[in-house]
Amino acid sequence: MTVSSFNPPSRMLMGPGPSDIHSRVLQALGRPVIGHLDPEFILMMDEIKGLLHYTFQTTNQMTLPVSAPGSAGMESCFVNLVEPGDSVIVCINGVFGMRMVENVERCGATAITVNDEWGTPIDLNKLEDTIKANPDAKAVAFVHAETSTGVQSDAAAISKLAQAGDMLTIMDAVTSLGGTPVMIDEWKIDACYSGTQKCLSCVPGISPVTFSDRALDVIRKRNHKVQSWFLDMNLIMGYWSSEGATRSYHHTAPVNALYALHESLVMLKDEGIENAWKRHQKNHNGLKAGLETLGLDLIVDESCRLPQLNAIKVPEGIDEALVRRRMLSDFGIEIGAGLGALAGKVWRIGLMGQSSTPRHVTLCLAALEGVLSDIGAPLKGNDAAGAAQKILLQA
Amino acid sequence: MTVSSFNPPSRMLMGPGPSDIHSRVLQALGRPVIGHLDPEFILMMDEIKGLLHYTFQTTNQMTLPVSAPGSAGMESCFVNLVEPGDSVIVCINGVFGMRMVENVERCGATAITVNDEWGTPIDLNKLEDTIKANPDAKAVAFVHAETSTGVQSDAAAISKLAQAGDMLTIMDAVTSLGGTPVMIDEWKIDACYSGTQKCLSCVPGISPVTFSDRALDVIRKRNHKVQSWFLDMNLIMGYWSSEGATRSYHHTAPVNALYALHESLVMLKDEGIENAWKRHQKNHNGLKAGLETLGLDLIVDESCRLPQLNAIKVPEGIDEALVRRRMLSDFGIEIGAGLGALAGKVWRIGLMGQSSTPRHVTLCLAALEGVLSDIGAPLKGNDAAGAAQKILLQA
Repeated sequence: MTVSSFNPPSRMLMGPGPSDIHSRVLQALGRPVIGHLDPEFILMMDEIKGLLHYTFQTTNQMTLPVSAPGSAGMESCFVNLVEPGDSVIVCINGVFGMRMVENVERCGATAITVNDEWGTPIDLNKLEDTIKANPDAKAVAFVHAETSTGVQSDAAAISKLAQAGDMLTIMDAVTSLGGTPVMIDEWKIDACYSGTQKCLSCVPGISPVTFSDRALDVIRKRNHKVQSWFLDMNLIMGYWSSEGATRSYHHTAPVNALYALHESLVMLKDEGIENAWKRHQKNHNGLKAGLETLGLDLIVDESCRLPQLNAIKVPEGIDEALVRRRMLSDFGIEIGAGLGALAGKVWRIGLMGQSSTPRHVTLCLAALEGVLSDIGAPLKGNDAAGAAQKILLQA
Repeated sequence: MTVSSFNPPSRMLMGPGPSDIHSRVLQALGRPVIGHLDPEFILMMDEIKGLLHYTFQTTNQMTLPVSAPGSAGMESCFVNLVEPGDSVIVCINGVFGMRMVENVERCGATAITVNDEWGTPIDLNKLEDTIKANPDAKAVAFVHAETSTGVQSDAAAISKLAQAGDMLTIMDAVTSLGGTPVMIDEWKIDACYSGTQKCLSCVPGISPVTFSDRALDVIRKRNHKVQSWFLDMNLIMGYWSSEGATRSYHHTAPVNALYALHESLVMLKDEGIENAWKRHQKNHNGLKAGLETLGLDLIVDESCRLPQLNAIKVPEGIDEALVRRRMLSDFGIEIGAGLGALAGKVWRIGLMGQSSTPRHVTLCLAALEGVLSDIGAPLKGNDAAGAAQKILLQA
């Protein structure tokens, strides 16, 4: 086998992640590696922690990037907080709630599930009943922004219910962080993980996490060692603590990916996180106007719809995979397929981070309209991009 | 807090990793991200698998890069192969053997340890006795190249003993892969993990692993689910399998880090792995000649010394941390400190991957000689770099 260097094709990423990455972040990524214990690298790590405090809207001391993808960030929350014999209430309204159940069970604990239909938010009444019926449950785990459906649940209300039941909260903010408000301290969330490749528009492979002091206390008082050495927060904090010179080696940090994360967080801070939230909403509004023009429906009700992840119902009789293939081959645009129960039924268009711009919305709508027309799909109207512009070009 | 972009200082990396990265690999790393399910990305994944077959000298089907650092690669071997109630023989002659024990115990299994002095290789007689005394042990785990001491153990002989006892072998090749021979098939190793930031000279954060068919069989016949969802090889293979279009989503791959790994493996293949082994040996010989000139001793006997990781005894009365600080501040050269039992007692000079060149050896020796002279350390002779040249410049 002869193998040459790989040159990626030109793409515009509008699926469920990764999202497009700004050249500033790619340049940071490609800077020469230095040691993971280099004094200057350690100063940068401190800056990342500060920037993550801002991004998560928290003062939690234990706020840091796990050196692995969001799935490992999820696992870091469960393996540190859950012990064999515990029970955890898990809200399921999509793929990632199901993955949480897997995590709970693999910790030797019991998952008590609250099931809601995919495409709807977590039902607060059902959750409240479940909390009351299971007063010994240790935690309530839920997905803030379900990437598989495009639904946002009411994290503040869920957290309040958990607190009333004296339970910890574990929140998945993989798709929400940086795109819609994630208020760790205000909502009193005890453990939260996210990903870098969505609204932060950084490279995939890193998972920012944050743990409250209450969660820290639970971790310190565990009866069993954390089952994962790699994800044991007691050990990781020895490396990420702010003691400077006394930092101890745990694993070799992904130095270059952290350069990139640093740069993407600097960009977010420079923009202002509230401005980023507004930008995501505005570009979503433009996309929505264009989709309405074409007669395409979003499956999620407006009241709980994520602006950054748009699940669109595939019209009857349309070969959904063909449309995605054509978007990719004719325009270099990646849009996402459905996952799990929604496989084959939806397209998922991400407007996340650097992929949330008028340019992305306009081209995506024009391309989608072109492809659908070309394969003979009946469309309600035309010039979807024009309809979007009316919103996108407003000051 | 105002934070600006981070620009790393200029460094020459000669510690225990990360090693210097070639500009080709940094350029690959910084290319635009594409989707982790993009057809062109999937073709690249297949190429990575092929290149890893070459690098590991194996035909094992389950050969792939774990999306996290070497510590997670280690954990992937243990959590997939070891179940609660199992016992595993672990050879300890440095930090990483101790970490293996942690892994075994966190799997709910028992570690039976064979302890050898740090700086010496694994004693085959002691291991053989332990295998005979514990016929029910499931596996023998050992570190091929101990990064904490610079010792290489006889992997072929260890594996033969394990086979005679009908036990699996789990091998740490983090520091050996690409620097000295790692012959997975010839040695009949069942599970092996490595890191990308050592002799492969790629970014830290990825761990190539390989599992034999015998190991696969053990994984398939487990009684308990793998305790880590993120590292469950049954699931990971669904994404990394060679079925092409049927690949299923498990986690979002670290796309850019895999571009970089691909490029570093292409470079290794272009050089020829045997040539890389020779290069590491020759540069070590040069370093050794220079150290001898200065009267500095390597702690490991020549018969089992790793050319790529050189543990040097700190002369009595010398402030070892001051020497490292001066190497860094005056020359931008990173050398490593001792770890664990060797903390404060050795320096560790890495000649790994792109950091294994005559340029690195020459500058490091000249700088070390200068710093030691400057702080008044008694040296046996001078012009260590000149002594090295006599070897380095030979055809």
